[in-house]
Amino acid sequence: MSDQSTTIADLRKLVADFVSRRDWNQFHSPKNLSMSLAIEAAELMEHFQWITIDQSREIASQPQKLGEVADELADILCYALALANELQLDLADAIFAKMRKNEEKYPADEFRGRFGREA
Amino acid sequence: MSDQSTTIADLRKLVADFVSRRDWNQFHSPKNLSMSLAIEAAELMEHFQWITIDQSREIASQPQKLGEVADELADILCYALALANELQLDLADAIFAKMRKNEEKYPADEFRGRFGREA
Amino acid sequence: MSDQSTTIADLRKLVADFVSRRDWNQFHSPKNLSMSLAIEAAELMEHFQWITIDQSREIASQPQKLGEVADELADILCYALALANELQLDLADAIFAKMRKNEEKYPADEFRGRFGREA
Amino acid sequence: MSDQSTTIADLRKLVADFVSRRDWNQFHSPKNLSMSLAIEAAELMEHFQWITIDQSREIASQPQKLGEVADELADILCYALALANELQLDLADAIFAKMRKNEEKYPADEFRGRFGREA
Repeated sequence: MSDQSTTIADLRKLVADFVSRRDWNQFHSPKNLSMSLAIEAAELMEHFQWITIDQSREIASQPQKLGEVADELADILCYALALANELQLDLADAIFAKMRKNEEKYPADEFRGRFGREA
Repeated sequence: MSDQSTTIADLRKLVADFVSRRDWNQFHSPKNLSMSLAIEAAELMEHFQWITIDQSREIASQPQKLGEVADELADILCYALALANELQLDLADAIFAKMRKNEEKYPADEFRGRFGREA
Repeated sequence: MSDQSTTIADLRKLVADFVSRRDWNQFHSPKNLSMSLAIEAAELMEHFQWITIDQSREIASQPQKLGEVADELADILCYALALANELQLDLADAIFAKMRKNEEKYPADEFRGRFGREA
Repeated sequence: MSDQSTTIADLRKLVADFVSRRDWNQFHSPKNLSMSLAIEAAELMEHFQWITIDQSREIASQPQKLGEVADELADILCYALALANELQLDLADAIFAKMRKNEEKYPADEFRGRFGREA
């Protein structure tokens, strides 16, 4: 169980089995799951709400806080996997396609060291 | 490029290369990335904001809308991967660990057909 | 203390005094407060995450749940007032100006019974 | 039209009239409005996503950006007013009640210069 050896399909199955064993597909409409994703993203933000940008980087070396952040990030990903399951979307395909668009939208030469659209 | 054959590590590398070629790690503090995740989750929600729960399920069979939703979901995942890169977190490990906690917190027998904590 | 007799300025002062007595202006940067608003909005959403649209309307007649929702809505508004205080923005002016733009963007005749842009 | 002279009831009426003239109450379920609040909060965050905490304070003296932020904040408040209208909640009452709880939860002596629960 590591990022090197785990496929997206492995994780999708883990989530699909958990959901179906509880008969929760009835609650897992795309509308509800989109709310769930936003709720979990907010719970992740809570860990960074009042601290500085530099302090947020230091969490990488603080095992307890890092574990809490990992838990919140896992929640976000589980709902993303659940949504992909409900909509029968291939996530790897979606990510590769979006990154190709991003390559065109943000040419490396033009955006080096400058963020986003306004830069 | 499919969920069957793509590992988390493959996707992390895709995002890491994109970010480093633009020298964007300077913007990718965990604080900023947590905001980005919440912003993209909200963009996903926009597709479901005014429609009913049933209508949100119908998007699975509407190719154009499904493509838009896939794009937003990809954005969320790319920022999740970027955050894992910054914090050097193993996502598969985080997800398996969180799902084990969820198995204990929501025993299948007790929560079958009932959502969340209040059920 | 009711919406009939309370001005925005009354509420701004209530929040400003609370914040300054705790010396919390140092934490109340617009960036942090924008995160706080999104976090509180997510806490409000949690009350509606798994229920249907019709069930969400029934909360109007469920005193305990209504009280919980009122609390979350108050949190959102307090942070909105705090942000107005930090940026020295007049909220009534901002709302009247935005509603004038909305009147132009969504002509009543064209958008009657139809939501948003896509309608 | 200023915070000094505008009551919450004035603003509620402004929003109620706008919504009813478009027959939009049918879309304004509490569930949908909670999503709307989170979506607008995310649009506010976009203005602060990649900038530092100090840069976010400088927006107070940048008229154009300040106007954009005021617009987003107005959107959040309009949905908060719309939700209060749907649920027939008195916002001034909710805010005063919540601030009394906050006074108890965060005694000024204990929390001076320290944020939140963890402090």
